[in-house]
Amino acid sequence: MSSRKELANAIRALAMDAVEAAKSGHPGMPMGMADIAEVLWNNFLAHNPGNPKWANRDRFVLSNGHGSMLIYALLHLSGYALPMAELKNFRQLHSKTAGHPEASETPGVETTTGPLGQGLANAVGMALAEKVLAARFNRDGFNVVDHRTFVFLGDGCLMEGISHEAASLAGTLGLGKLVAIWDDNGISIDGEVEGWFTDDTPKRFEAYGWNVIRGVDGHDPAAIKTAIEQATASVKPTLICAKTVIGFGAPNKQGKESCHGAPLGKDEVAAARAQLGWNHAPFEIPDDIYAGWNAKAKGTERESAWNTLFARYRAAHPELAAEFERRQSGKLPENFSTAVDAWIAKLQVEGPAVASRKASQMALDAYGPLLPELIGGSADLAGSNLTIWKGSKDVVKGGETANYVHYGVREFGMGAIANGLALHGGFIPYDATFLVFSDYARNAVRMSALIPTRAIHVYTHDSIGLGEDGPTHQPVEHLASLRYIPNNPVWRPCDAVESAVAWKCAIERNDGPSCLVFSRQTLVHQSRDDEQVQQISRGGYVLSDPANTKFDVILIATGSEVEVAMQAMRILADKGVAARVVSMPCTQVFDAQPIEYREGVLPDWCRKRIAIEAGVTDFWRKYVGLDGDVIGLDRFGASAPAERLYVHFGITAEAVVDRVKALA
Amino acid sequence: MSSRKELANAIRALAMDAVEAAKSGHPGMPMGMADIAEVLWNNFLAHNPGNPKWANRDRFVLSNGHGSMLIYALLHLSGYALPMAELKNFRQLHSKTAGHPEASETPGVETTTGPLGQGLANAVGMALAEKVLAARFNRDGFNVVDHRTFVFLGDGCLMEGISHEAASLAGTLGLGKLVAIWDDNGISIDGEVEGWFTDDTPKRFEAYGWNVIRGVDGHDPAAIKTAIEQATASVKPTLICAKTVIGFGAPNKQGKESCHGAPLGKDEVAAARAQLGWNHAPFEIPDDIYAGWNAKAKGTERESAWNTLFARYRAAHPELAAEFERRQSGKLPENFSTAVDAWIAKLQVEGPAVASRKASQMALDAYGPLLPELIGGSADLAGSNLTIWKGSKDVVKGGETANYVHYGVREFGMGAIANGLALHGGFIPYDATFLVFSDYARNAVRMSALIPTRAIHVYTHDSIGLGEDGPTHQPVEHLASLRYIPNNPVWRPCDAVESAVAWKCAIERNDGPSCLVFSRQTLVHQSRDDEQVQQISRGGYVLSDPANTKFDVILIATGSEVEVAMQAMRILADKGVAARVVSMPCTQVFDAQPIEYREGVLPDWCRKRIAIEAGVTDFWRKYVGLDGDVIGLDRFGASAPAERLYVHFGITAEAVVDRVKALA
Repeated sequence: MSSRKELANAIRALAMDAVEAAKSGHPGMPMGMADIAEVLWNNFLAHNPGNPKWANRDRFVLSNGHGSMLIYALLHLSGYALPMAELKNFRQLHSKTAGHPEASETPGVETTTGPLGQGLANAVGMALAEKVLAARFNRDGFNVVDHRTFVFLGDGCLMEGISHEAASLAGTLGLGKLVAIWDDNGISIDGEVEGWFTDDTPKRFEAYGWNVIRGVDGHDPAAIKTAIEQATASVKPTLICAKTVIGFGAPNKQGKESCHGAPLGKDEVAAARAQLGWNHAPFEIPDDIYAGWNAKAKGTERESAWNTLFARYRAAHPELAAEFERRQSGKLPENFSTAVDAWIAKLQVEGPAVASRKASQMALDAYGPLLPELIGGSADLAGSNLTIWKGSKDVVKGGETANYVHYGVREFGMGAIANGLALHGGFIPYDATFLVFSDYARNAVRMSALIPTRAIHVYTHDSIGLGEDGPTHQPVEHLASLRYIPNNPVWRPCDAVESAVAWKCAIERNDGPSCLVFSRQTLVHQSRDDEQVQQISRGGYVLSDPANTKFDVILIATGSEVEVAMQAMRILADKGVAARVVSMPCTQVFDAQPIEYREGVLPDWCRKRIAIEAGVTDFWRKYVGLDGDVIGLDRFGASAPAERLYVHFGITAEAVVDRVKALA
Repeated sequence: MSSRKELANAIRALAMDAVEAAKSGHPGMPMGMADIAEVLWNNFLAHNPGNPKWANRDRFVLSNGHGSMLIYALLHLSGYALPMAELKNFRQLHSKTAGHPEASETPGVETTTGPLGQGLANAVGMALAEKVLAARFNRDGFNVVDHRTFVFLGDGCLMEGISHEAASLAGTLGLGKLVAIWDDNGISIDGEVEGWFTDDTPKRFEAYGWNVIRGVDGHDPAAIKTAIEQATASVKPTLICAKTVIGFGAPNKQGKESCHGAPLGKDEVAAARAQLGWNHAPFEIPDDIYAGWNAKAKGTERESAWNTLFARYRAAHPELAAEFERRQSGKLPENFSTAVDAWIAKLQVEGPAVASRKASQMALDAYGPLLPELIGGSADLAGSNLTIWKGSKDVVKGGETANYVHYGVREFGMGAIANGLALHGGFIPYDATFLVFSDYARNAVRMSALIPTRAIHVYTHDSIGLGEDGPTHQPVEHLASLRYIPNNPVWRPCDAVESAVAWKCAIERNDGPSCLVFSRQTLVHQSRDDEQVQQISRGGYVLSDPANTKFDVILIATGSEVEVAMQAMRILADKGVAARVVSMPCTQVFDAQPIEYREGVLPDWCRKRIAIEAGVTDFWRKYVGLDGDVIGLDRFGASAPAERLYVHFGITAEAVVDRVKALA
């Protein structure tokens, strides 16, 4: 039987060897955290390498994701489908061993990490998911949802603001099954952290209401084991402060920044092998070491036991069991699509003139009862974002149907927690803030798209239309900037019907996030026939064509500016100019339509095109080209009532008419 | 003589009345913090209403900027050039009383606030500026730099992650002259904060190394006075925890969210007047109240005393005094432009092939010695961003020439602290991280542009060219997204010469920020004649034209892709296709050139245009239109060596040649 040290050294060796082979990477962290990881994975982590998607597995998150070779080594050694060939191919094209761990690429990687601090917030989301799901599904004698979330984090994660947001909320939410282990090695990229990071971190986390275990020797397996035992007994989230030596085992580089983010070099690798007593060739793992790590049998046993429990649960609570499985699968209820289409058709007939943020709430009221997996929230703007629907229940108050998180003023944490909720399974999270403050959450939105997660980001107060709050609160560049994030459809509906369709598309999209952008101000209802209602979900469509003549000009608009275009169309008609109006609630979905459809909406022969959107104009050149024109806003807004601002900045039907004339 | 309560009630009345008149705004915070503000402004704040720009004034920052009527009332009452007419015009177009305080609009407003938490970070920057400037300029008996920075903040600021980053760094930096006063009213927009904000905030700030004064009654002037006295005696930054009642004085709404962000309503305003014993008409301030507030005489006296001190200082240390005045004025040294142009000319001749991040460091080495006002830093990536030049000295270690901040992994805090450094005066800050992590700082960058500040944001590792770190670290949408922030020129130089010009333009730009975007990988040197070297600063220029023929196609590129365009041009030439190559290091500066210049570079007759940039393609439609083409990347990158990625994603000279053919 291999000693714990030998087991841990296998991680160290693989990390050194893979980084050496790749000629890039981060050996320091895996070598420093190897002992901790060994104890956690071999004594505590309830997982099944044979089924990385087993619903009740413990979640393991590497928030300090640059140490990716740690998790690749763990997955490989414990028996996941990550063969040695992949480790040898570390950081190469088409490998499953990217520079930073990617959930979409590697079996067993729970979330994509690297952007510091976000892994911690993802873990908070996972632990919250477990708690809310357990409250919903567990019954006496049937703890079908019962697992922990472990997260490793470094000094960098702790310096990031998002660690404050996530940890603070985890404390308030009392996420007792969350265990964070801090790699307290005193080193970050600039060197010894004492020049820029002097927090009393244990005290800080106690201030958040966490259980803090201080001064654990991160190279003493017994001490680590005791600490994790204490952590798993706590009803509060726990931070284990583990003192480690970065690059442990590399005699000349350990404890220094030089081992953090670069290959150790041939000589130092050899010296480390000698110091560690690891006498095996690169990428060579002796059988007894493999045997010591292999978790496949234990994992199968664990999952089998759970399957047995779940079979009994199904017998006792068949509907709950079916619902649990449906939610885990990510599939929507069967009646969803039909019910929603009926609601949309009804809206088109009734034609309410409401702010689209209100229309969003109406959609939540309509769809929410069908979707117990919806878990909402707002960054302290519930009454403005209108994210609370009639079925919303605060998760802090608990209960079976809890489905709403008061995130507090924590936009970035919220976004990353939403990603964690989605990654866990069983939930479709939506979060919300003002559009301008999507900036605060921006990299979490990017991560929603990259991981990817079905996180729905609701952004209200979408333009100068928010009025008096002024330029600090008025988005200008945000629509365009969010649209440029790959795999991130941005919807900006023009009325209640488009709002309802946007929500439908976001919910039905099971392979990535959506941003839903809504107005503060009231929007008029637009007339549509059935085909037009259908076409909304294609991202862009002809909202209005001249009755008995060919059009001379195309007006393209989104959101509140669709009505500006419609007004301009009417004025132009009076002047004998025939205009087509295209509503374009989601440019990316439109761009993904077949060329025939796009050509049908924006025929190449018509280059007299004007786009209208209360934001930066250059984005729209992709549709209007060099010969068209764009009406928008290429400067910061101003503080004044919304109607005055529209006139002041020239986003009016009259301006559209003038520009049409100028195109001639 | 008016009582303190009456003086404070003047703020309350003005806040109620202005919000009522505007039919929007936030009365709760000004009414809650009125007593604190009264004591601070009348007993402590060393300022001069007659000269809001007096160099040695105390700085006052309203981080909870939605309470803007607090600062407008304070400025008006104490004698700043903010007449009652402006208060009556609260939140109206062209008023000096925007919904949130704007430094560019209102005399006496030190920074633009509203996006929560950033005011605190701005204040940290101002306090840091004071400390570093004092170390540089003060001499025995001549404390010409000696002022405090006061900042008000609310629960929202404290929930934001940036409060962690800024407060943590302030503790490490030991900014003893920073005094933060927390409006501990237990209310945020969603209601009573106990459901989402249960931090032990005093303990948290003690963990940062702050002096914390607990449990101050925010409506007891004597207690407030004692607390501020204790704060100003501390060598650590101080947090005063002041218990207040939001909307204090409004009998039915105080203590509740309902008074936070909406007019109180006619009846409640009347009831509040009765409860407060304020019997004056709206916007009416009795003379004795004005007299109690007026700080003009005291302010003139303070500044005069300082002027006397400074005159003696000038006599004793004429060079230091002149340098202090130059730095305060924001003017560059007289020899700067000449010296820099000589350096650029030399670079063009020598033609080093280096990564542009290295070229950036070379520029710092060349310009740094001329610019003691440069204060640099990086978010724990000094060795990667190459932001340390040979004159860099750590501010933590102190000394007269300290000019470098190890910000730690705190991108957002860094950006907002840089804004504070610039706002203080005496400094040109530059900060740095990887381009992809500009996301973390994004709203601070926006605020640099909106305030505006001469903050220089350095972003390295600018594309898939960073290679193995993979998609989490590879920017794709960031160049385009940053360019869309108004007033925010983004430079992406193609070689060492353009890098040097970019730095020059950023430093010489005295009315806003710049983003300087540099490569990880080596870039070849491009040949240029003198005129071309001159034209770099126009943002875009013809780098290469066919020798003896008219061009058929225009290739537009930036940064590392300029050489791709040059290679394609050579291949095309061999095939008989004549291409012009346009280098476009800064699209926004190019767009601001006269039409004649732009037409000279991109003549309308030539619609065969291809843009090449390793990022989202749609941005470039503004230059290539519907008939051109763009080579770039509209998906996330991948983890692999850079050269492989360029080939994998088809950003190569061969691809350019193919696309040129396809255009025909």
